[in-house]
Amino acid sequence: MLLHRIEEVREQVSAWKKEGLTVGLVPTMGALHAGHLSLIKKAKEACDKVVVSDFVNPIQFGPSEDFDKYPRTLDADMELCNKEGVDIVFAPSANEMYGEGQKLSNDNLTYVCPPFFYVNTLCGKTRTGHFDGVCTVVLKLFNIVQPDYAFFGQKDAQQVIIIKKMVKDLNVPIKIVQCPIIREESGLALSSRNKYLSEEGKKDALVLSKILNNIKSCYEKGITDVEALKETAYNFLTEKHNMEYLEIVDKDTLENKTNADDNSIALIACRVENVRLIDNIYLK
Amino acid sequence: MLLHRIEEVREQVSAWKKEGLTVGLVPTMGALHAGHLSLIKKAKEACDKVVVSDFVNPIQFGPSEDFDKYPRTLDADMELCNKEGVDIVFAPSANEMYGEGQKLSNDNLTYVCPPFFYVNTLCGKTRTGHFDGVCTVVLKLFNIVQPDYAFFGQKDAQQVIIIKKMVKDLNVPIKIVQCPIIREESGLALSSRNKYLSEEGKKDALVLSKILNNIKSCYEKGITDVEALKETAYNFLTEKHNMEYLEIVDKDTLENKTNADDNSIALIACRVENVRLIDNIYLK
Repeated sequence: MLLHRIEEVREQVSAWKKEGLTVGLVPTMGALHAGHLSLIKKAKEACDKVVVSDFVNPIQFGPSEDFDKYPRTLDADMELCNKEGVDIVFAPSANEMYGEGQKLSNDNLTYVCPPFFYVNTLCGKTRTGHFDGVCTVVLKLFNIVQPDYAFFGQKDAQQVIIIKKMVKDLNVPIKIVQCPIIREESGLALSSRNKYLSEEGKKDALVLSKILNNIKSCYEKGITDVEALKETAYNFLTEKHNMEYLEIVDKDTLENKTNADDNSIALIACRVENVRLIDNIYLK
Repeated sequence: MLLHRIEEVREQVSAWKKEGLTVGLVPTMGALHAGHLSLIKKAKEACDKVVVSDFVNPIQFGPSEDFDKYPRTLDADMELCNKEGVDIVFAPSANEMYGEGQKLSNDNLTYVCPPFFYVNTLCGKTRTGHFDGVCTVVLKLFNIVQPDYAFFGQKDAQQVIIIKKMVKDLNVPIKIVQCPIIREESGLALSSRNKYLSEEGKKDALVLSKILNNIKSCYEKGITDVEALKETAYNFLTEKHNMEYLEIVDKDTLENKTNADDNSIALIACRVENVRLIDNIYLK
């Protein structure tokens, strides 16, 4: 069932809750791929009813980012969701989410602002305001759908960590379920932005997972010095890769490590054909 | 019933909800007076069960403000609540609300940040971060209690307007009920901070309501020019009054007016004996 209005979603979910059914939410920006489908499958297993939100959220894009260009494929998304037995696809307009004609800025909208420490690192360094926009829309979706569980992919590792922190800090009564990264056979992590890449670009993009896998095997061989682990990346990078960051941090708190340990996560962001790609791996 | 732990509150409210009962929340910082009791009575009328939160919220006080000195009267509060038939008084510790040993700052806590336009005016001008702290704790309490209705006094007019805006912007599924200001027979608006005043200070403090009443009667006589209305205040002020602001703005959006109209509210903040007092009046 495709719904565009907040009130329609509330009514349907409220009817389910009266029947004692559990509800799972999979928040997406559409352009669904097998990564999203793995979240949906997990939600179907865990919950009686599943809502997928399909909304390209303007307030999480910076002025120079790809909001206009971001792939929008609602018909294909609906087909995939129907196949998976999704109960509601919620695809609101920006006006429905933020109010008719509302200027989208901190001047006149209430924002949810994650802690500076979690934001001013990794993707947040170059994407100012991104995680404020993410947390704000996610909390809105939580309040609209009021699910028991919400499902997020580990692909956007910093995002999941920040959302878990928000849920804890604001006592949000929802359980966050984190699901593993889904990859192409080649190792490339699935992303809606892969659509921007040429065939050659997709090959160049394999460097991200190669760097991460190599760091993990170095760690397994006993190398723990973070600087040494990071330096191994230079064996893979060419002039086609514009690396933005490569960090090894605590997987729950994002704190920097001098020596990697079993709680560490390695994260990378890199531009290939000017497409910004991210990937990450747990060292254990 | 006095509860200190978040989980205890959740369990009790969840049991009520399963019975189909409606729940009202009256968020307070304790030091209850007849103003709070009017909110509680309203909640009792409107809801099957009433929760009063009693928590002096550290993150809404500035470093030079009266957090340490703020009156804490839990025993007396409990007595009043019992008399009114309150079902739960929720009096958590700061550790329970914000986590054991957590440093209370934007560095490591998720905040709810109301729009700059609503914050950088009136009380917000001198109380930097105050409304961020208010919205954050109120949203936490909303998520802990999950009431159907929440009750706020018009006394803190800017606060209610900001909370209504937060509820709208973040799609919080709770109805906000705004209740009128309760005054002493003298006209002094009830406030927990009145306890700081000497008998003479209480008399001097009457100037706030006198200024507001006079503005309203001037408006009723046909004076609409905001500057002219504001100037009438000088007939009342003495060296005992340290006025912080007197403004006439739109009662829903806080926008400044050149000419007052029936949607206007006059708001005043003034220090008497170095106690910061606020008051307001609708022009209609």
